[in-house]
Amino acid sequence: MRKVNLAAAFDAFHDCWSPKVAGDLNDFQVKLVKLDGTFEWHHHDVEDELFLVVAGTMRMGLRTGDIDVGTGELIIVPHGTEHRPQALTTPCHVVLLEPRSTVNTGNVDSARTVRDLGRI
Amino acid sequence: MRKVNLAAAFDAFHDCWSPKVAGDLNDFQVKLVKLDGTFEWHHHDVEDELFLVVAGTMRMGLRTGDIDVGTGELIIVPHGTEHRPQALTTPCHVVLLEPRSTVNTGNVDSARTVRDLGRI
Repeated sequence: MRKVNLAAAFDAFHDCWSPKVAGDLNDFQVKLVKLDGTFEWHHHDVEDELFLVVAGTMRMGLRTGDIDVGTGELIIVPHGTEHRPQALTTPCHVVLLEPRSTVNTGNVDSARTVRDLGRI
Repeated sequence: MRKVNLAAAFDAFHDCWSPKVAGDLNDFQVKLVKLDGTFEWHHHDVEDELFLVVAGTMRMGLRTGDIDVGTGELIIVPHGTEHRPQALTTPCHVVLLEPRSTVNTGNVDSARTVRDLGRI
């Protein structure tokens, strides 16, 4: 068993939109991701997805209206809901909590799709 | 869909050791809990449990040696592992991520067992 210091863990990698697994619990994983610019619109057929912003501000693009999520705020995007994360600041550091099966680009295959996640 | 501001959510309740549900995702829940003093030793037969400290410092009592978890740090306690959370500071605010089925005192029934959680 180990603890994870979020600031140190975020300092340990630099690529954006490439979630790093920080821990496993049951069928879920904790992932750390750095955002830069705007991601693709996508949804997840099955997986709900929690975004907790720990540095900066993220805009969660939603077809029903965007929601800005600042440091110390979280939002849960239910499965089936189209969304498009966007960094409003640099840096923009986000902790994800989601089922292990979650692919970052959901139903969309793109150059940013990452199927073999690194660990931190 | 709504966002949760953690500082505001923690300001909205005052009882300790009584987790409040802040959101649901698949079979998991996000819960907020205030710690004060020392909890019971217990384990969870099935559920892994993530503790993220967002204010103060928590000591996670473990039979293999305690681990102090500060603000911005997280630890995952695997199922079957005896543990005893303790607040080292006042306040001590912790975000829990765990399966919905998780009972706060695990295998132990005590005066602190909470089966019908409030929501925040």
